[in-house]
Amino acid sequence: MTFMRYKITIEYDGTNYYGWQKQDGLRTIAGTIETAIFNITGQETQVFGSGRTDTGVHAKGQVAHFDIEKQFEPYKLMMAINAHLVKDDISVINCEEVSEDFHARFSSKKRYYQYIILNRTPKEALDKNRVWRISQDLNIDQMQKAANYLLGNHDFSSFRSSQCTALSPVKTIDYINITKNGEYIYIDISAKSFLHHMVRNIVGTLVDVGLSKQEPSWVKEVLESKDRTKAGITAPAQGLYFVKVDYD
Amino acid sequence: MTFMRYKITIEYDGTNYYGWQKQDGLRTIAGTIETAIFNITGQETQVFGSGRTDTGVHAKGQVAHFDIEKQFEPYKLMMAINAHLVKDDISVINCEEVSEDFHARFSSKKRYYQYIILNRTPKEALDKNRVWRISQDLNIDQMQKAANYLLGNHDFSSFRSSQCTALSPVKTIDYINITKNGEYIYIDISAKSFLHHMVRNIVGTLVDVGLSKQEPSWVKEVLESKDRTKAGITAPAQGLYFVKVDYD
Repeated sequence: MTFMRYKITIEYDGTNYYGWQKQDGLRTIAGTIETAIFNITGQETQVFGSGRTDTGVHAKGQVAHFDIEKQFEPYKLMMAINAHLVKDDISVINCEEVSEDFHARFSSKKRYYQYIILNRTPKEALDKNRVWRISQDLNIDQMQKAANYLLGNHDFSSFRSSQCTALSPVKTIDYINITKNGEYIYIDISAKSFLHHMVRNIVGTLVDVGLSKQEPSWVKEVLESKDRTKAGITAPAQGLYFVKVDYD
Repeated sequence: MTFMRYKITIEYDGTNYYGWQKQDGLRTIAGTIETAIFNITGQETQVFGSGRTDTGVHAKGQVAHFDIEKQFEPYKLMMAINAHLVKDDISVINCEEVSEDFHARFSSKKRYYQYIILNRTPKEALDKNRVWRISQDLNIDQMQKAANYLLGNHDFSSFRSSQCTALSPVKTIDYINITKNGEYIYIDISAKSFLHHMVRNIVGTLVDVGLSKQEPSWVKEVLESKDRTKAGITAPAQGLYFVKVDYD
Protein backbone atom coordinates (compact mmCIF):
# COMPACT_ATOMS: atom_id res chain seq x y z
CA MET A 1 0.00 0.00 0.00
CA THR A 2 1.45 3.30 -1.01
CA PHE A 3 0.78 6.49 0.88
CA MET A 4 1.65 10.15 0.71
CA ARG A 5 3.14 11.95 3.66
CA TYR A 6 2.10 15.57 4.28
CA LYS A 7 3.75 18.14 6.49
CA ILE A 8 1.43 20.80 7.88
CA THR A 9 2.13 23.98 9.82
CA ILE A 10 -0.59 24.86 12.30
CA GLU A 11 -1.69 27.97 14.18
CA TYR A 12 -3.97 27.59 17.18
CA ASP A 13 -5.41 29.20 20.26
CA GLY A 14 -4.99 26.50 22.90
CA THR A 15 -7.50 27.94 25.36
CA ASN A 16 -10.40 25.64 24.55
CA TYR A 17 -8.46 22.41 23.98
CA TYR A 18 -6.98 19.75 26.23
CA GLY A 19 -3.58 20.33 24.71
CA TRP A 20 -2.06 18.93 21.55
CA GLN A 21 -2.07 15.19 22.21
CA LYS A 22 -5.06 13.06 21.27
CA GLN A 23 -7.01 11.78 24.27
CA ASP A 24 -10.20 9.74 24.10
CA GLY A 25 -13.31 11.78 24.72
CA LEU A 26 -11.43 15.09 25.03
CA ARG A 27 -11.19 17.91 22.54
CA THR A 28 -7.53 18.16 21.61
CA ILE A 29 -5.69 19.87 18.77
CA ALA A 30 -4.30 16.69 17.18
CA GLY A 31 -7.58 14.83 17.67
CA THR A 32 -9.54 17.63 16.04
CA ILE A 33 -7.22 17.68 13.01
CA GLU A 34 -7.40 13.89 12.70
CA THR A 35 -11.19 14.09 12.63
CA ALA A 36 -11.05 16.77 9.92
CA ILE A 37 -8.73 14.59 7.81
CA PHE A 38 -10.99 11.59 8.33
CA ASN A 39 -14.00 13.59 7.20
CA ILE A 40 -12.16 14.57 4.02
CA THR A 41 -10.45 11.31 3.12
CA GLY A 42 -12.43 8.62 4.92
CA GLN A 43 -9.12 7.40 6.32
CA GLU A 44 -8.06 7.06 9.91
CA THR A 45 -4.66 8.66 10.29
CA GLN A 46 -2.43 9.71 13.12
CA VAL A 47 -1.16 13.27 13.21
CA PHE A 48 2.37 13.40 14.66
CA GLY A 49 3.34 16.78 16.10
CA SER A 50 6.85 18.16 16.45
CA GLY A 51 6.11 18.63 20.14
CA ARG A 52 3.19 18.43 22.52
CA THR A 53 1.63 21.54 23.95
CA ASP A 54 -0.40 21.69 27.15
CA THR A 55 -3.90 23.05 27.62
CA GLY A 56 -3.89 26.80 27.07
CA VAL A 57 -0.57 26.92 25.20
CA HIS A 58 -0.85 28.52 21.76
CA ALA A 59 0.96 27.92 18.49
CA LYS A 60 1.87 30.20 15.63
CA GLY A 61 3.78 27.45 13.83
CA GLN A 62 3.38 23.96 15.26
CA VAL A 63 4.41 21.36 12.66
CA ALA A 64 2.95 17.90 12.18
CA HIS A 65 2.92 15.11 9.63
CA PHE A 66 0.49 12.40 8.63
CA ASP A 67 0.09 9.76 5.95
CA ILE A 68 -2.88 9.25 3.69
CA GLU A 69 -3.37 6.89 0.77
CA LYS A 70 -5.03 9.36 -1.52
CA GLN A 71 -2.90 12.01 -3.18
CA PHE A 72 -4.02 15.59 -2.77
CA GLU A 73 -2.74 18.83 -4.14
CA PRO A 74 -1.25 20.23 -0.86
CA TYR A 75 -2.94 23.63 -1.16
CA LYS A 76 -6.33 21.98 -1.70
CA LEU A 77 -5.76 19.64 1.23
CA MET A 78 -4.92 22.63 3.46
CA MET A 79 -8.06 24.45 2.40
CA ALA A 80 -10.19 21.32 2.84
CA ILE A 81 -8.87 20.76 6.39
CA ASN A 82 -9.51 24.42 7.27
CA ALA A 83 -13.03 24.17 5.88
CA HIS A 84 -13.60 21.36 8.38
CA LEU A 85 -12.07 23.47 11.19
CA VAL A 86 -14.33 26.44 10.59
CA LYS A 87 -15.68 26.35 14.15
CA ASP A 88 -12.31 25.59 15.67
CA ASP A 89 -9.53 27.88 16.89
CA ILE A 90 -7.13 25.97 14.67
CA SER A 91 -5.83 26.82 11.21
CA VAL A 92 -3.50 24.95 8.88
CA ILE A 93 -1.31 27.71 7.49
CA ASN A 94 0.94 25.61 5.27
CA CYS A 95 0.85 22.16 3.72
CA GLU A 96 3.43 20.31 1.64
CA GLU A 97 4.13 16.82 0.44
CA VAL A 98 7.24 15.37 2.05
CA SER A 99 9.21 12.16 1.64
CA GLU A 100 8.42 9.24 3.89
CA ASP A 101 11.58 9.74 5.93
CA PHE A 102 10.36 13.11 7.18
CA HIS A 103 9.15 13.02 10.79
CA ALA A 104 7.74 16.15 12.43
CA ARG A 105 9.36 15.29 15.75
CA PHE A 106 12.52 13.38 14.92
CA SER A 107 13.59 15.39 11.87
CA SER A 108 13.35 18.71 13.66
CA LYS A 109 16.52 20.72 14.12
CA LYS A 110 15.37 23.64 16.21
CA ARG A 111 12.29 24.79 18.07
CA TYR A 112 11.32 28.35 18.89
CA TYR A 113 9.02 29.47 21.67
CA GLN A 114 7.86 32.89 22.76
CA TYR A 115 6.47 33.77 26.16
CA ILE A 116 4.47 37.00 26.52
CA ILE A 117 4.07 38.89 29.79
CA LEU A 118 1.73 41.87 30.09
CA ASN A 119 3.42 44.02 32.71
CA ARG A 120 0.59 46.19 34.02
CA THR A 121 -1.98 46.31 36.79
CA PRO A 122 -5.38 46.52 35.05
CA LYS A 123 -6.74 43.26 33.77
CA GLU A 124 -6.28 42.35 30.12
CA ALA A 125 -9.25 42.65 27.76
CA LEU A 126 -7.86 42.21 24.26
CA ASP A 127 -5.23 39.77 25.56
CA LYS A 128 -7.53 37.53 27.58
CA ASN A 129 -6.05 34.00 27.72
CA ARG A 130 -3.05 35.20 25.72
CA VAL A 131 -0.54 36.60 28.22
CA TRP A 132 0.67 36.32 31.80
CA ARG A 133 -0.25 39.60 33.45
CA ILE A 134 2.12 40.72 36.18
CA SER A 135 1.35 43.93 38.05
CA GLN A 136 4.70 44.71 39.63
CA ASP A 137 7.42 46.24 37.47
CA LEU A 138 9.81 43.70 36.02
CA ASN A 139 13.46 44.56 35.51
CA ILE A 140 14.25 42.99 32.16
CA ASP A 141 17.97 43.77 32.32
CA GLN A 142 18.23 41.63 35.44
CA MET A 143 16.11 38.94 33.79
CA GLN A 144 18.40 38.90 30.76
CA LYS A 145 21.49 38.58 32.98
CA ALA A 146 19.85 35.67 34.76
CA ALA A 147 18.81 34.05 31.46
CA ASN A 148 22.37 34.16 30.17
CA TYR A 149 23.40 31.56 32.79
CA LEU A 150 21.09 29.09 31.06
CA LEU A 151 22.56 29.41 27.57
CA GLY A 152 24.38 26.42 26.12
CA ASN A 153 24.46 22.78 27.12
CA HIS A 154 23.28 21.95 30.65
CA ASP A 155 21.42 19.44 32.77
CA PHE A 156 18.03 21.19 33.08
CA SER A 157 16.61 18.93 35.83
CA SER A 158 15.74 22.04 37.86
CA PHE A 159 13.40 23.17 35.08
CA ARG A 160 11.85 19.80 34.29
CA SER A 161 8.29 18.76 35.08
CA SER A 162 7.95 15.63 37.21
CA GLN A 163 5.86 14.17 34.37
CA CYS A 164 8.60 14.65 31.80
CA THR A 165 9.38 11.44 29.93
CA ALA A 166 12.57 12.57 28.15
CA LEU A 167 15.44 10.12 28.49
CA SER A 168 17.96 12.82 29.37
CA PRO A 169 17.62 16.16 31.17
CA VAL A 170 20.51 17.57 29.14
CA LYS A 171 19.49 20.17 26.58
CA THR A 172 21.16 23.01 24.69
CA ILE A 173 19.60 26.47 24.70
CA ASP A 174 20.68 28.58 21.74
CA TYR A 175 19.34 31.87 22.98
CA ILE A 176 16.98 33.57 25.41
CA ASN A 177 16.19 37.12 24.32
CA ILE A 178 14.10 39.34 26.55
CA THR A 179 12.67 42.48 25.03
CA LYS A 180 10.11 45.04 26.04
CA ASN A 181 7.60 46.91 23.89
CA GLY A 182 5.34 49.18 25.90
CA GLU A 183 3.61 47.04 28.50
CA TYR A 184 4.61 43.80 26.79
CA ILE A 185 7.65 41.72 27.68
CA TYR A 186 8.66 39.06 25.16
CA ILE A 187 10.87 36.14 26.10
CA ASP A 188 12.12 34.39 22.98
CA ILE A 189 13.87 31.08 23.44
CA SER A 190 15.28 28.51 21.07
CA ALA A 191 16.73 25.00 21.44
CA LYS A 192 16.85 21.78 19.45
CA SER A 193 14.38 20.40 21.94
CA PHE A 194 12.94 21.12 25.38
CA LEU A 195 11.92 19.16 28.46
CA HIS A 196 8.28 19.17 29.57
CA HIS A 197 7.40 22.56 31.12
CA MET A 198 10.99 23.73 30.59
CA VAL A 199 10.13 27.08 29.00
CA ARG A 200 7.41 27.84 31.55
CA ASN A 201 9.67 26.87 34.45
CA ILE A 202 12.45 29.06 33.10
CA VAL A 203 10.04 31.98 32.72
CA GLY A 204 8.69 31.53 36.26
CA THR A 205 12.26 31.57 37.55
CA LEU A 206 13.31 34.61 35.52
CA VAL A 207 10.27 36.48 36.81
CA ASP A 208 11.52 36.01 40.40
CA VAL A 209 14.67 37.82 39.29
CA GLY A 210 12.69 40.48 37.42
CA LEU A 211 10.74 41.16 40.62
CA SER A 212 14.05 41.50 42.54
CA LYS A 213 13.15 38.57 44.78
CA GLN A 214 16.40 37.01 43.62
CA GLU A 215 19.70 38.09 42.10
CA PRO A 216 20.54 36.96 38.56
CA SER A 217 23.30 34.67 39.90
CA TRP A 218 20.66 32.73 41.83
CA VAL A 219 19.58 31.19 38.51
CA LYS A 220 23.05 29.67 38.18
CA GLU A 221 22.62 28.08 41.62
CA VAL A 222 19.18 26.79 40.68
CA LEU A 223 20.57 25.26 37.47
CA GLU A 224 23.48 23.61 39.27
CA SER A 225 21.25 22.22 42.03
CA LYS A 226 19.45 19.99 39.48
CA ASP A 227 16.51 20.25 41.87
CA ARG A 228 13.12 21.35 40.56
CA THR A 229 12.09 22.61 44.01
CA LYS A 230 14.81 25.30 43.91
CA ALA A 231 13.42 27.03 40.82
CA GLY A 232 10.48 29.40 40.46
CA ILE A 233 6.89 28.58 39.65
CA THR A 234 5.68 27.19 36.35
CA ALA A 235 4.53 30.26 34.40
CA PRO A 236 0.89 30.01 33.25
CA ALA A 237 0.26 28.18 29.98
CA GLN A 238 -1.68 31.05 28.43
CA GLY A 239 1.44 33.21 27.84
CA LEU A 240 3.30 30.55 25.86
CA TYR A 241 3.45 30.36 22.06
CA PHE A 242 5.06 27.59 20.04
CA VAL A 243 6.42 29.77 17.24
CA LYS A 244 8.34 27.69 14.75
CA VAL A 245 10.25 24.50 14.03
CA ASP A 246 13.27 24.27 11.75
CA TYR A 247 14.04 21.25 9.57
CA ASP A 248 16.91 20.62 7.18
CA MET B 1 -25.24 68.63 45.03
CA THR B 2 -21.54 68.26 44.45
CA PHE B 3 -20.09 65.53 42.30
CA MET B 4 -16.75 64.30 41.13
CA ARG B 5 -15.98 63.77 37.47
CA TYR B 6 -13.76 60.86 36.47
CA LYS B 7 -12.03 60.23 33.17
CA ILE B 8 -11.42 56.59 32.33
CA THR B 9 -9.45 54.94 29.55
CA ILE B 10 -10.91 51.65 28.39
CA GLU B 11 -9.67 48.63 26.48
CA TYR B 12 -12.21 46.22 25.01
CA ASP B 13 -12.83 43.42 22.61
CA GLY B 14 -16.02 44.52 20.86
CA THR B 15 -16.94 41.09 19.47
CA ASN B 16 -19.59 40.19 22.03
CA TYR B 17 -21.16 43.64 22.50
CA TYR B 18 -23.71 45.68 20.59
CA GLY B 19 -21.23 48.49 20.23
CA TRP B 20 -20.35 51.28 22.64
CA GLN B 21 -23.65 53.10 23.04
CA LYS B 22 -26.14 52.07 25.72
CA GLN B 23 -29.28 50.43 24.34
CA ASP B 24 -32.07 48.98 26.40
CA GLY B 25 -31.93 45.24 26.73
CA LEU B 26 -28.69 44.89 24.78
CA ARG B 27 -25.21 44.22 26.09
CA THR B 28 -23.15 47.27 25.20
CA ILE B 29 -19.79 48.57 26.37
CA ALA B 30 -21.11 51.79 27.95
CA GLY B 31 -24.12 50.02 29.46
CA THR B 32 -21.91 47.35 31.01
CA ILE B 33 -19.62 49.97 32.56
CA GLU B 34 -22.60 51.95 33.89
CA THR B 35 -23.90 48.79 35.57
CA ALA B 36 -20.48 48.18 37.15
CA ILE B 37 -20.38 51.76 38.49
CA PHE B 38 -23.93 51.42 39.81
CA ASN B 39 -22.99 48.20 41.61
CA ILE B 40 -20.06 49.96 43.27
CA THR B 41 -21.61 53.33 44.11
CA GLY B 42 -25.36 52.70 44.15
CA GLN B 43 -25.64 55.68 41.80
CA GLU B 44 -27.11 55.78 38.33
CA THR B 45 -24.64 57.57 36.09
CA GLN B 46 -24.19 58.08 32.41
CA VAL B 47 -20.87 57.16 30.84
CA PHE B 48 -20.00 59.57 27.99
CA GLY B 49 -17.55 58.17 25.47
CA SER B 50 -15.21 60.17 23.26
CA GLY B 51 -16.73 58.37 20.30
CA ARG B 52 -19.11 55.53 19.59
CA THR B 53 -17.85 52.24 18.26
CA ASP B 54 -19.97 49.69 16.39
CA THR B 55 -20.46 46.03 17.19
CA GLY B 56 -17.19 44.18 16.72
CA VAL B 57 -14.96 47.26 16.80
CA HIS B 58 -12.26 47.07 19.46
CA ALA B 59 -10.57 49.68 21.62
CA LYS B 60 -7.11 49.93 23.09
CA GLY B 61 -7.76 53.37 24.50
CA GLN B 62 -11.37 54.58 24.32
CA VAL B 63 -11.89 57.45 26.76
CA ALA B 64 -15.05 58.25 28.70
CA HIS B 65 -16.17 60.38 31.63
CA PHE B 66 -18.88 60.11 34.26
CA ASP B 67 -19.96 61.90 37.43
CA ILE B 68 -20.54 60.37 40.82
CA GLU B 69 -21.33 61.98 44.14
CA LYS B 70 -18.98 59.91 46.20
CA GLN B 71 -15.28 60.64 46.01
CA PHE B 72 -13.02 57.72 45.24
CA GLU B 73 -9.31 57.37 45.02
CA PRO B 74 -9.06 56.97 41.19
CA TYR B 75 -6.85 53.87 41.33
CA LYS B 76 -9.27 52.15 43.70
CA LEU B 77 -12.22 53.12 41.53
CA MET B 78 -10.49 51.64 38.48
CA MET B 79 -9.78 48.40 40.32
CA ALA B 80 -13.34 48.25 41.67
CA ILE B 81 -14.85 48.69 38.20
CA ASN B 82 -12.55 46.01 36.78
CA ALA B 83 -13.52 43.66 39.60
CA HIS B 84 -17.11 44.07 38.43
CA LEU B 85 -16.06 43.45 34.81
CA VAL B 86 -14.29 40.20 35.56
CA LYS B 87 -16.46 38.22 33.13
CA ASP B 88 -16.43 40.98 30.52
CA ASP B 89 -14.04 41.66 27.67
CA ILE B 90 -13.64 45.20 28.98
CA SER B 91 -10.91 46.68 31.16
CA VAL B 92 -10.46 50.15 32.61
CA ILE B 93 -6.76 50.79 32.12
CA ASN B 94 -6.59 54.29 33.55
CA CYS B 95 -8.72 56.46 35.82
CA GLU B 96 -8.26 60.04 36.95
CA GLU B 97 -10.25 62.80 38.57
CA VAL B 98 -10.91 65.65 36.16
CA SER B 99 -12.52 69.06 36.46
CA GLU B 100 -16.18 69.43 35.62
CA ASP B 101 -15.45 71.17 32.34
CA PHE B 102 -13.78 68.05 30.97
CA HIS B 103 -15.91 66.23 28.41
CA ALA B 104 -14.69 62.99 26.84
CA ARG B 105 -16.21 63.91 23.49
CA PHE B 106 -16.13 67.70 23.29
CA SER B 107 -12.74 68.26 24.92
CA SER B 108 -10.96 65.83 22.64
CA LYS B 109 -8.29 67.20 20.32
CA LYS B 110 -7.33 64.17 18.30
CA ARG B 111 -8.43 60.59 17.76
CA TYR B 112 -6.32 57.69 16.57
CA TYR B 113 -7.55 54.53 14.91
CA GLN B 114 -5.76 51.47 13.62
CA TYR B 115 -7.10 49.01 11.09
CA ILE B 116 -5.46 45.57 10.85
CA ILE B 117 -5.54 43.40 7.74
CA LEU B 118 -4.20 39.85 7.76
CA ASN B 119 -2.98 39.38 4.22
CA ARG B 120 -2.94 35.61 3.79
CA THR B 121 -5.09 32.77 2.50
CA PRO B 122 -5.49 30.35 5.44
CA LYS B 123 -8.09 31.35 7.99
CA GLU B 124 -7.01 33.13 11.16
CA ALA B 125 -6.90 31.19 14.43
CA LEU B 126 -5.13 33.45 16.93
CA ASP B 127 -6.64 36.53 15.26
CA LYS B 128 -10.25 35.37 15.12
CA ASN B 129 -12.57 38.42 15.26
CA ARG B 130 -9.52 40.71 15.33
CA VAL B 131 -8.51 41.32 11.71
CA TRP B 132 -9.84 41.51 8.18
CA ARG B 133 -8.31 38.62 6.33
CA ILE B 134 -7.67 39.23 2.64
CA SER B 135 -6.23 36.40 0.54
CA GLN B 136 -4.99 38.29 -2.50
CA ASP B 137 -1.71 40.21 -2.23
CA LEU B 138 -2.18 43.86 -1.40
CA ASN B 139 0.19 46.47 -2.80
CA ILE B 140 0.73 48.80 0.13
CA ASP B 141 2.76 51.33 -1.85
CA GLN B 142 -0.23 51.89 -4.11
CA MET B 143 -2.53 52.04 -1.07
CA GLN B 144 -0.30 54.69 0.53
CA LYS B 145 -0.32 56.77 -2.67
CA ALA B 146 -4.10 56.59 -2.71
CA ALA B 147 -4.35 57.44 0.99
CA ASN B 148 -2.29 60.58 0.49
CA TYR B 149 -5.13 62.13 -1.55
CA LEU B 150 -7.25 62.04 1.60
CA LEU B 151 -4.88 63.95 3.86
CA GLY B 152 -5.92 67.39 5.06
CA ASN B 153 -9.28 69.13 5.11
CA HIS B 154 -11.97 67.73 2.81
CA ASP B 155 -15.65 67.03 2.47
CA PHE B 156 -15.74 63.31 3.25
CA SER B 157 -19.32 62.67 2.10
CA SER B 158 -18.07 59.78 -0.04
CA PHE B 159 -16.85 58.01 3.07
CA ARG B 160 -19.81 58.73 5.31
CA SER B 161 -22.41 56.24 6.46
CA SER B 162 -26.01 57.09 5.61
CA GLN B 163 -26.75 56.92 9.36
CA CYS B 164 -24.15 59.55 10.23
CA THR B 165 -25.58 62.37 12.32
CA ALA B 166 -22.63 64.77 12.13
CA LEU B 167 -23.61 68.33 11.21
CA SER B 168 -20.85 68.66 8.64
CA PRO B 169 -19.10 66.13 6.37
CA VAL B 170 -15.92 68.22 6.47
CA LYS B 171 -13.08 66.68 8.45
CA THR B 172 -9.30 66.98 8.59
CA ILE B 173 -7.15 63.86 8.40
CA ASP B 174 -3.70 64.35 9.92
CA TYR B 175 -2.12 61.19 8.61
CA ILE B 176 -2.78 57.78 7.13
CA ASN B 177 0.24 55.51 7.51
CA ILE B 178 0.21 52.07 5.95
CA THR B 179 2.85 49.62 7.10
CA LYS B 180 3.45 45.92 6.71
CA ASN B 181 4.91 43.45 9.20
CA GLY B 182 4.96 39.91 7.87
CA GLU B 183 1.40 38.97 6.96
CA TYR B 184 -0.06 41.97 8.81
CA ILE B 185 -0.91 45.31 7.22
CA TYR B 186 -1.54 48.19 9.63
CA ILE B 187 -3.43 51.30 8.58
CA ASP B 188 -2.94 54.04 11.16
CA ILE B 189 -5.12 57.11 10.84
CA SER B 190 -5.60 60.23 12.91
CA ALA B 191 -8.00 63.18 12.86
CA LYS B 192 -9.67 65.52 15.32
CA SER B 193 -12.88 63.62 14.64
CA PHE B 194 -14.37 61.21 12.15
CA LEU B 195 -17.71 60.64 10.45
CA HIS B 196 -19.64 57.42 11.11
CA HIS B 197 -17.94 54.50 9.29
CA MET B 198 -15.36 56.91 7.86
CA VAL B 199 -12.30 54.81 8.75
CA ARG B 200 -13.89 51.58 7.59
CA ASN B 201 -15.08 53.18 4.33
CA ILE B 202 -11.61 54.59 3.69
CA VAL B 203 -10.04 51.17 4.34
CA GLY B 204 -12.49 49.43 2.02
CA THR B 205 -11.65 51.95 -0.68
CA LEU B 206 -7.87 51.69 -0.19
CA VAL B 207 -8.14 47.90 -0.43
CA ASP B 208 -9.62 48.23 -3.94
CA VAL B 209 -6.43 50.09 -4.85
CA GLY B 210 -4.24 47.54 -3.05
CA LEU B 211 -5.87 44.80 -5.11
CA SER B 212 -5.15 46.80 -8.30
CA LYS B 213 -8.85 47.07 -9.09
CA GLN B 214 -8.32 50.83 -9.14
CA GLU B 215 -5.47 53.28 -9.57
CA PRO B 216 -4.46 55.48 -6.60
CA SER B 217 -5.81 58.58 -8.39
CA TRP B 218 -9.29 56.99 -8.39
CA VAL B 219 -9.47 57.80 -4.66
CA LYS B 220 -9.17 61.48 -5.52
CA GLU B 221 -12.13 61.13 -7.88
CA VAL B 222 -14.12 59.30 -5.22
CA LEU B 223 -13.38 62.04 -2.69
CA GLU B 224 -14.36 64.81 -5.10
CA SER B 225 -17.60 63.07 -6.13
CA LYS B 226 -18.95 63.44 -2.55
CA ASP B 227 -20.97 60.33 -3.39
CA ARG B 228 -20.84 57.36 -1.04
CA THR B 229 -21.77 54.98 -3.86
CA LYS B 230 -18.49 55.75 -5.67
CA ALA B 231 -16.28 54.48 -2.84
CA GLY B 232 -15.37 50.93 -1.85
CA ILE B 233 -17.08 48.68 0.66
CA THR B 234 -17.23 49.30 4.39
CA ALA B 235 -14.35 47.25 5.77
CA PRO B 236 -15.48 44.74 8.44
CA ALA B 237 -15.73 46.04 12.00
CA GLN B 238 -13.50 43.34 13.46
CA GLY B 239 -10.28 44.82 12.04
CA LEU B 240 -10.81 48.26 13.58
CA TYR B 241 -9.21 49.47 16.83
CA PHE B 242 -9.90 52.77 18.56
CA VAL B 243 -6.39 53.40 19.80
CA LYS B 244 -6.19 56.70 21.62
CA VAL B 245 -7.67 60.14 22.21
CA ASP B 246 -5.67 63.28 22.90
CA TYR B 247 -6.83 66.07 25.20
CA ASP B 248 -5.12 69.29 26.12
